[in-house]
Amino acid sequence: MRSPCPICAALDLVGDKWSLLIVRDMIWLGKTRYNQFTDSPEHIPTNILADRLKRMERFGLIQSKPYQDNPPRHEYHLTDKGLELRPVLIEMIHWANKHIPGTITPPVPID
Amino acid sequence: MRSPCPICAALDLVGDKWSLLIVRDMIWLGKTRYNQFTDSPEHIPTNILADRLKRMERFGLIQSKPYQDNPPRHEYHLTDKGLELRPVLIEMIHWANKHIPGTITPPVPID
Repeated sequence: MRSPCPICAALDLVGDKWSLLIVRDMIWLGKTRYNQFTDSPEHIPTNILADRLKRMERFGLIQSKPYQDNPPRHEYHLTDKGLELRPVLIEMIHWANKHIPGTITPPVPID
Repeated sequence: MRSPCPICAALDLVGDKWSLLIVRDMIWLGKTRYNQFTDSPEHIPTNILADRLKRMERFGLIQSKPYQDNPPRHEYHLTDKGLELRPVLIEMIHWANKHIPGTITPPVPID
């Protein structure tokens, strides 16, 4: 850890442009599989997706489990630790809806 | 913008390991000046600090104003847009205090 500051510690885990989008896809869109994540409109590069899934599993935010043997494929689910990032994302939604023109208000309930 | 998703739009502005630490220093520690930010325990590199302050001003999160002419020096203050990131940070604090061992609970009221 860079410091014992909780904000800093959180950013060390999810302070990048992609990890929280994967959490978003899992929470609100029910995505679990590799090609579902690459289908999102932000078009996450596959090498970044692979890296972030590995990091997020190492940090205890997600768990992987195999769903196919040949070729081997995994699906990914949020742990409680990952799921509980939801309030952070909800505050980001409120903030962006208020301050960044052109952002859409989610059609699903977020509170 | 990568997409009209508000979470994505927020991350395009503050989805990095440093910008929100600068916001933290401004909100809770009242920091406004360059050397005050470099004094924080995370030791932000000066080139990154300069880059982030420029980006944050371009994004409308902070405003700079000169406080000294020779040599020229600026101080930085949050705009309403920057200040209203507070609820995002507070949710990060709650999340990290619960899920990341070794993080300290801030001694000042955060709610």
